[in-house]
Parts: sequence; structure tokens; C-alpha cells
Amino acid sequence: MKIFYSLLIASFFCNALCANDSIALRRISDNILLHGTCYDNLRTLCKDIGHRLSGSPQSEAAVAWGAQALRDAGADTVWLQPVYVPKWVRGKESLQVRSGKSGVYRDVPVLSLGNSTGTDGRVLELQVIMVHSFEELEKLPDAQVKGKIVFYNYRFRQDFVTTFHGYGDAVKYRSQGPNRASAKGAAAIVIRSVSSAPDDKPHTGMTSYADSVRPIPAVAIGNTTANDLEAACKKGTVHVRLQSECRMEEPALSWNVIGEIRGSVYPEEIIVAGGHLDSWDVGDGAHDDGAGCVQSIEVIRTFKALKLQPKRTVRAVLFMNEENGVKGGHAYADSAKARNERHIFALESDAGGFTPRGIGMNMPEEKKQKIRSYAPLFLPYGVYDFSQNGGGVDITPLGRQGVPLAGLIPDSQRYFDLHHAASDTFETVNHRELKLGAIAITGLVYLISEYGL
Amino acid sequence: MKIFYSLLIASFFCNALCANDSIALRRISDNILLHGTCYDNLRTLCKDIGHRLSGSPQSEAAVAWGAQALRDAGADTVWLQPVYVPKWVRGKESLQVRSGKSGVYRDVPVLSLGNSTGTDGRVLELQVIMVHSFEELEKLPDAQVKGKIVFYNYRFRQDFVTTFHGYGDAVKYRSQGPNRASAKGAAAIVIRSVSSAPDDKPHTGMTSYADSVRPIPAVAIGNTTANDLEAACKKGTVHVRLQSECRMEEPALSWNVIGEIRGSVYPEEIIVAGGHLDSWDVGDGAHDDGAGCVQSIEVIRTFKALKLQPKRTVRAVLFMNEENGVKGGHAYADSAKARNERHIFALESDAGGFTPRGIGMNMPEEKKQKIRSYAPLFLPYGVYDFSQNGGGVDITPLGRQGVPLAGLIPDSQRYFDLHHAASDTFETVNHRELKLGAIAITGLVYLISEYGL
Repeated sequence: MKIFYSLLIASFFCNALCANDSIALRRISDNILLHGTCYDNLRTLCKDIGHRLSGSPQSEAAVAWGAQALRDAGADTVWLQPVYVPKWVRGKESLQVRSGKSGVYRDVPVLSLGNSTGTDGRVLELQVIMVHSFEELEKLPDAQVKGKIVFYNYRFRQDFVTTFHGYGDAVKYRSQGPNRASAKGAAAIVIRSVSSAPDDKPHTGMTSYADSVRPIPAVAIGNTTANDLEAACKKGTVHVRLQSECRMEEPALSWNVIGEIRGSVYPEEIIVAGGHLDSWDVGDGAHDDGAGCVQSIEVIRTFKALKLQPKRTVRAVLFMNEENGVKGGHAYADSAKARNERHIFALESDAGGFTPRGIGMNMPEEKKQKIRSYAPLFLPYGVYDFSQNGGGVDITPLGRQGVPLAGLIPDSQRYFDLHHAASDTFETVNHRELKLGAIAITGLVYLISEYGL
Repeated sequence: MKIFYSLLIASFFCNALCANDSIALRRISDNILLHGTCYDNLRTLCKDIGHRLSGSPQSEAAVAWGAQALRDAGADTVWLQPVYVPKWVRGKESLQVRSGKSGVYRDVPVLSLGNSTGTDGRVLELQVIMVHSFEELEKLPDAQVKGKIVFYNYRFRQDFVTTFHGYGDAVKYRSQGPNRASAKGAAAIVIRSVSSAPDDKPHTGMTSYADSVRPIPAVAIGNTTANDLEAACKKGTVHVRLQSECRMEEPALSWNVIGEIRGSVYPEEIIVAGGHLDSWDVGDGAHDDGAGCVQSIEVIRTFKALKLQPKRTVRAVLFMNEENGVKGGHAYADSAKARNERHIFALESDAGGFTPRGIGMNMPEEKKQKIRSYAPLFLPYGVYDFSQNGGGVDITPLGRQGVPLAGLIPDSQRYFDLHHAASDTFETVNHRELKLGAIAITGLVYLISEYGL
């Protein structure tokens, strides 16, 4: 019920503001839908540069592109903020499966998990032991796990309406899977991808190792292969051949890319709209998170195109290294603290370039209420849900300094079909959905730039 | 504001109902998300049968498939209702454009508009006269139009947030374009497709001829070709070569496909959930309207799977011939009247298999209020908008008999990128979005089957 009362209260608040603000939001919407450059920018980022894992040559190209795009958008100032990022390199990798007595190994699509260790070029021939949960793994005698490859066969729960709940439920096998298996003596792990797609695309994503365990190779397979492997394991003994050259190299110097319009009345009050510039090293990194980057640039462009001079400083931040280290998010927050900057609001768009449905918030209740008072202004753009928590990985370090956080909430249905997979391509982004997200962000940034928070 | 007050009122109404109904809707949601067959059914319809224009062999196959799918879903009774449908056949068609002095004709992608007349196999060589509106056409002297091909260069308005408004705004050039041009002596027309896509796909769709004018060939080109043609027309004289074998044949016997579960308490009160089985003869007819058909079948399947015995009769209706005649919709309404059937509610899903946002209604206010009282039950499924008008082309004849109408409102952003085009394929439908639509429909049909309207 909470949302209804909030909206009712909001409707009273709104009367004073609505008329002019409603016109401002309509101008923002018209300008972005008719003249917005975010979709063209995304094409350039995805198709001319491509995916861009931290430390890769493409990530360097993306930094240069981002700075130029912010200049083209009309930012008063554009600068790069240095960040040392982990440099993980995939290299060649393969997984072959042999089941039954045929002795024939069959290649299956595979992706090493991000930050995983490889096999040092060797081919590991391993017996598969299938588990469906950590509980099941813990019950096994160590001797039964030792030297084998643990297959975490945990399905993405399709019954959650919000797919982020399904992701939150399943991702522990990706993040903690290697630790838990290694502690029991396993030689490697393979997970059923954290994927809602009825297809065979493997989905990568970060894993990590505790200091207390031996790092073991960790890979992901798609849902179809996982179904086949499950059936084979139920029938009898299954072996795999695993090879992976992936490795961590020395940290590399990289950059956050920042552009701002200085506030005319309260320049010391800073509003951030951001996304992350790095992506996994498959697909185009289009929804994750090219979309958030080009939407943040669109905020700057739209203010300039409409000659909306913000009272407070508006910054677009393209963070580096969200995927496998969050070094950019930390560097930004550290710099803000060192420079004694006063951030009054930070929003991240990192949930895909899909049709927007809401703004999630993580801030004190009275600030949430102030933002909820604007809800009626957003309803014509399909943005109705101001009831959820929200923020973003890159702005979380700012949040720890007390900065009010928000996150764009796009429709989540398609996201985990393609998240961290080769299927996250430019072609899966709809021009209008992407722009509607940019409208929601720009509209909210505009209102906060006018009225503070 | 209206929506907020409605939702508030709704929240009070709801307390009495919510607990059990909320559980019922959750069961419906879980069942469809985990075990629903609509996505698999859509694959079969789209990939094994394909597009299915009224009177085509594929439409016959679709009728047989639909009847079997309804039997498989567990309908108590399945029957076919005869409908005579227009049979329009496309045949070969081509458009070539020559601009400047080069004398070279270049092939461009083209689709004849549905129900259009062809060129009798001849190649018409015609000069192009570009207009941007009917007003501009009317101002031209007849002599300037006579014997030429009128190019209606009207752009889909991207500034409307709801793309159906853009469609409603532009579609008159498709429906009335031939009449208006023929009245001034034009030999043919070509329209910029009624398409929001930044691509070159032509979009077909029905046109028609008044008795007072000579039927002239009418074709559509994609947005890219239209941009090129516009530029060429601005520069100088442009000619085209148009050939089209399309023609209207004799009406054919076809069928509406109907399956029902008989109500246990008020069997004479009938609730319809429907979509249309025919499609245009390009692409797969996936969003338009395979989606609505498989969602309607899902309603029947879900009631049976969950052993929800409806108090009122629940019918799934797969209408034939929505696209170029609405003969199925009329036949259904005529039959209902002849048999003195009492329909208390009819809902159509014919706006694409996208993530649902609302239920549109066309019925007396007190009935709308009753349905709005259920709004809080639908919010967890992303369905929040009960403020719009809604219905469907196939159920409009029922509406004229006083039956309360509704239509599923999916997110509209992607629809007119692919509507009536070769790009309306199964691959563009997301399994979860399609299922969420089926959940919304099944949930509402359930509530009305329990509480009447």
C-alpha cells in the first residue's frame, strides 16, 4: 500500500511545482526523443570500440571516446581521474565433456569467470561432481570432492518477478563457489551460468578467492549445456577436459572520465549522474553498462541544448572498473573526500538500457519523500515506482560518506538473459527505451539542480 | 492526479479481497513463470507455421494448431467458428528509384500495402511528387499530380512517449493515402512506413479504397529509403519503376478458434480473453499477434494446471482476419447475438508481447472502478496503469452490443519498430515479458470469474 499513500501525498506537494516543472520535463523529453545522441553514442562505443575490460586497449580507447563525447555534449570542463585497475586477461579457454562409455570428448561453450585463475596452459582432465547447493557440497566427504571439478548446478529462479532477485539469489555460486570447493580440495569449479536465458550462452562475472584457500580455475557454462551435464551426471560418471590461459597481470593505469556543468548559484553542491565505462570482455557491453554511460552524457547534452543553466553543479561520471574491482568508484569517492567536495546526490544507471519504471533510493527518509513528491511529474514517462532501494556499485563508496544515492530502475525482464554474456550487444538496445531512461535521469537531475535535496 | 486517487480508493476496497486473491495471483504467476507454455507455443506458431495472412495455407495450419493447443491446454470444449475472409495475395513486387541524371534505377526494399491493388504485372514508370501532408497534396493543382506517384513523406512522431499516439497520428497516410491521391489523378502512392525504427524495413498494413475513386497501387518504403528519396526529391526530378502482382482473390472460408472452460456457478456469464491468429505475410507475426493468441491459450492452461474452477465461463478466442477485414471479430459478435450469449467481459491482447504496464478499459465508470479496485493486486507484477482506454479491434463488435471491453497495455516502445514488418519475429519476443503479460490477463480473468463485473 505504501506506494499509494506516498503518491497521494506527492500529489499535494506537487501542485506548487508542477506547472513549470512539468513543462521543463516535457522539453527534456521532446529534446531527447527527437535530438538525443545517446543511441548514436552507444553505437560508436559498442561497434567502433567494442567490449572494454579494465586495462585492455579498448578500455583506453573508451576513455578517449568518453572525454570527447562529453566535450561534444557541451560540458564546461572535462577531465580524467587516474585509477589503478586490475588487469585480468582471458586468453584461450576450452571445456570438453565426456559422458558414458564412449570416451568421446565434446566441446561446449564456456567462459572463465572474471578474475579467475587459469590452468597454466595445461589440460586438466577431471571427474565431475554435481551439487545443487553449498549445503549439498558441505555434506560430501572431502575425499569425494578432492581433485574433482565441482559442478554447481543451481538454476536461476524464474519465479521472481524482479530478475535482480533471481540474480541476488544465484550469484553466490559464482562469487563464493571457488572458495567453498577449494576448501574441500576440489581442483576446479564449473557453474551453471547466472542466466535467465533459455539458451546456451555462458555468462561470466567476477569471482574472487579468499586468502585461506588455493585459487582454482572457475568457469561458467550456458543453461543448455548445464541441462545436458545434469542429465549426464544423473546417468553416470562424467569427465571434462579444462584448459584456460586466463591470468591476472600487473595493475594498469586507467581513468574515470568526468564532465561537468558548473552550477550558477550553488556551484559547491554537486550532483552526479553516472555509469561505468568498463565492461566484460565478451559482447559489446551495451546494456552493461554502455547504456548508463551514454545516458549520463545525455544529461549534459540536454542541459546545454535546452540552455538549462543548473543552479547546482551537474556532473556526468563514467567510472572505470566496476566489473572486477570497483577501483574507479573508490578513486572518485577518495578524491571527493580529499578535495572536500560536497555531493548532494549521486545516481547510477547500471541495470540496462531498458524501458524505465522507477528510481530506487538509498538516503534518509525525508530526502526520499522530497524525491517522491516529484513522482507525478514522471508518470507520463512510465516512471512510477519510487518505493525501491537503489544506488549503484560505483557510487556506493560515496554513499559511505553520507551522500544520498539513487539508481535508475529499468524493466528487468531481459537483463539477465544477456548480462555478462556475448549476447549483450548494441542490437539488443532499443533506441526509445534507452532515451526514456535518459529522460528520467535528466528530469530528476534537473529538479534536484533547481530545488536541492 | 486521477490515477492516484483511484489507487487510494482501490487500496481500501482491496483489504477485504486482498489476502486470498493476492495468493491466487501469486500462484498464477509462479505457475506461468515456471511452467507456462506460451513461449514454446509461440515458437511453434512462428517457426513451424510462420506468418499467416487470412486465406493462406499457413492460416489454415494455424487454425489446426490453435485448436490442438487449446485441447492440450485442457479446455473443456474446443470448436471452430466459420468466417469468410478476404484473400489478398502479394505476389512479386519491386520498386526502383532513379534520381539525378544518371539514368540508373536502384532497387529499394518495398512492401505493397495490404489489400492494395497491383500493377497487373506491368512496370509503371512514374515521376515522384513528394508531399508531407494531405494539406500539401490538396493545395497542388490536379495537373501536377496526374499520372504521378505521390510520395507521402510523413515521419513517425518520436516525441510521443506512447508510440500508439505516433501510430494513430501517422497511419492516416496508409489508410487514406490512395483515396486522396487517386482523387487528384495520381497513378500510385508510396508512403514512408508507419515505423519508429531507425532502419530500412518497409511496414505493410491495410489500406482501402472508397467506391468513388479508381484503386491505385500503394506501397511502403523503410525510413532509410524514405530519407534518401526525400533528399533526391529536394534536389531534382525523381522517377520510379513500380511493379506489383498483388491482388484480391475470392473470399475464402476460414475459422475463429475457440476453447472454453465452463463456469461452475454462472456458466451463462462468459468472459473472453483473445488475440488474433492471422498476421501480415512478412516476418513471423510474433508480437502481432502470435503473442495475444498464446497468452489467451495460457489463461486456459493455467486455470486447469492450478485446478482453478472458474465460477463463470472462461473462453479463449483466436480471432481470424483482424489485419485486413475483421471478419472474425464480426462473426464472433454475430454468433454471440444469435445464440443469445451473455458476455460480461472481453479482453484482447494485441499490442505486442512486451512487458505489461496496464489494463485499458472501455466500459461504464462503475465497472472500471471495480477493476481499479484490484489494482494493488497487480502492482507486484509491474501492472500499475488502469487509467487508459482500451479494447481491441476484434472485440469492438462485441463492445457495440454493450459488452465491457479491455485491452492489455504492454510497454509500447519497441512495437512500431517491427509492427507489420519482416522484423516481427519470434526472436524479438522475450520469454519473461510474454509470460508477465499472460499473468496479468489470467489474473484479471480469474478475479472477474470469481466476482463478476
